[in-house]
Amino acid sequence: MSSIRLFVTGGTFDKEYDELRGELFFKDTHLPEMLALGRSKLRVEVRTLMMIDSLEMTEDDRKLIVEQCRKAKESRLVVTHGTDTMEVTARALGEAAIPEKTIVLTGAMIPFKFGSSDGLFNLGSALAFAQALPAGVYVAMNGRFFTWDRVHKNKATGEFQEKP
Amino acid sequence: MSSIRLFVTGGTFDKEYDELRGELFFKDTHLPEMLALGRSKLRVEVRTLMMIDSLEMTEDDRKLIVEQCRKAKESRLVVTHGTDTMEVTARALGEAAIPEKTIVLTGAMIPFKFGSSDGLFNLGSALAFAQALPAGVYVAMNGRFFTWDRVHKNKATGEFQEKP
Amino acid sequence: MSSIRLFVTGGTFDKEYDELRGELFFKDTHLPEMLALGRSKLRVEVRTLMMIDSLEMTEDDRKLIVEQCRKAKESRLVVTHGTDTMEVTARALGEAAIPEKTIVLTGAMIPFKFGSSDGLFNLGSALAFAQALPAGVYVAMNGRFFTWDRVHKNKATGEFQEKP
Amino acid sequence: MSSIRLFVTGGTFDKEYDELRGELFFKDTHLPEMLALGRSKLRVEVRTLMMIDSLEMTEDDRKLIVEQCRKAKESRLVVTHGTDTMEVTARALGEAAIPEKTIVLTGAMIPFKFGSSDGLFNLGSALAFAQALPAGVYVAMNGRFFTWDRVHKNKATGEFQEKP
Repeated sequence: MSSIRLFVTGGTFDKEYDELRGELFFKDTHLPEMLALGRSKLRVEVRTLMMIDSLEMTEDDRKLIVEQCRKAKESRLVVTHGTDTMEVTARALGEAAIPEKTIVLTGAMIPFKFGSSDGLFNLGSALAFAQALPAGVYVAMNGRFFTWDRVHKNKATGEFQEKP
Repeated sequence: MSSIRLFVTGGTFDKEYDELRGELFFKDTHLPEMLALGRSKLRVEVRTLMMIDSLEMTEDDRKLIVEQCRKAKESRLVVTHGTDTMEVTARALGEAAIPEKTIVLTGAMIPFKFGSSDGLFNLGSALAFAQALPAGVYVAMNGRFFTWDRVHKNKATGEFQEKP
Repeated sequence: MSSIRLFVTGGTFDKEYDELRGELFFKDTHLPEMLALGRSKLRVEVRTLMMIDSLEMTEDDRKLIVEQCRKAKESRLVVTHGTDTMEVTARALGEAAIPEKTIVLTGAMIPFKFGSSDGLFNLGSALAFAQALPAGVYVAMNGRFFTWDRVHKNKATGEFQEKP
Repeated sequence: MSSIRLFVTGGTFDKEYDELRGELFFKDTHLPEMLALGRSKLRVEVRTLMMIDSLEMTEDDRKLIVEQCRKAKESRLVVTHGTDTMEVTARALGEAAIPEKTIVLTGAMIPFKFGSSDGLFNLGSALAFAQALPAGVYVAMNGRFFTWDRVHKNKATGEFQEKP
């Protein structure tokens, strides 16, 4: 069993509720906790690259993600990411044409720490797609996978869709 | 997007707590609720075949599962199943040599209705494997997939492993 | 068993996560759901007076709460309220000197819909204090009760304390 | 603020799911975790007397509970207890006529570790009744309190009721 690299960039996935200020904020990633909850026995290397809302992600942030994916020794990678600009980062990764790697971006509509999150479902699906899909860049959301050049988030419904 | 058939057979996945008798029992499947929680937009046809503990599954039950998988018009199938004898049903399906279908069995160590279930993670991963793996019979547990002729549940640890 | 009046004013208790905008917001009160979860068999009349953050509560809002408490036919009342200005509303109710009524304000540090809420604990305790304490105005938080003229929220710790 | 003694005897409150054997079992009490979740700032001394299903509670077990309540230096006590024989232990405590102490028994219909438990609500209410009710022995369930000589669990509905 070869290992999977999991890059954390923040997004709704990892937001928490600050009970003193009544606001959402980022503290630490919940990915290790989520892997434990899923009884994952995969060899997963979790690395936090940044912890930001994807609306605040800059070109430099995206370059960093591309470089980290390019340099990773693993050939199967999952990137957690805010949903609002996931398709932008997917395009940056796709256009970088990183050879022989399966890279899957995923995220969540509801923070993991809130009762009704889709995060655990999405993480399970992203890790599975990363193992089973051929080399390429994909988004895994809503139980589906999309190639980087065809994915679009419908802001009105929150649903990821295939572009024509 | 072609549709996926999801056969429910019971197992820990769907157990609930009977608060009047203080026992675990089966009522209805939670699969539709879980798909909604995961914001799944897959076309999934859920069909309950039985609602039993997999330790009580008979040869006739397994024949029914094999026949239903053979007759299903979908080419991608997920079967929810108790973990104790999941490998036996996987073998029955594998030896039936159903052509041109990807069949993925999955389950849970903890009931979905209990806070700390692995069920949502496993469901996400099983649906992804069903979409991305070639025709064949597989078990999806612990974030991994196993072919039907190599899978074994370690009863001491609860972990699914590859047989040598 | 006489009935208890439960006035809803909003506060963290009832905040939800808007998955399309990534923000906290108010939709409907969760009080009936929480009473069902607690298997409450009390006769409780739930009435929503407003659905606001207590930092936005005006003098007019407080007058409305006081008038509604005064006019209620029940002699035991619980008011759900944001924690930030709970002591201000408690004072308004206390100074109104409503005779022969036990009025208990309570709230939550974490929204009920988020996994780790104190809301259900606080609701259980507020309903119990409303039944067992003599006429007067109280705040029920942190498992304790405070009279309206002695209660203070420590903003640094989030804890309710007794003023000297 | 004087301290409250909390005696743990087991019951549904503290049951967990053994994922290797697929059975309910007792491990450790969840009371400290529940007090933390409720942001309780009460001074509570938690002491585990036994960890059993209340259907298995013997006369000797009840004598132990009575003696521990009699000897406790605190005047306000909460006893967590399985619901099936809670009224029997309440009677044993009531007939023991322990002077100058408020003793409140409580429990849960659903284990705390399962998502839909009434435990946190009941704990909040029991601690409040223990602080606010006069000396005596009570059961706190369903948001209500019952004196030891009038309480009865309706086995068909799971509801606690007042005996005529």
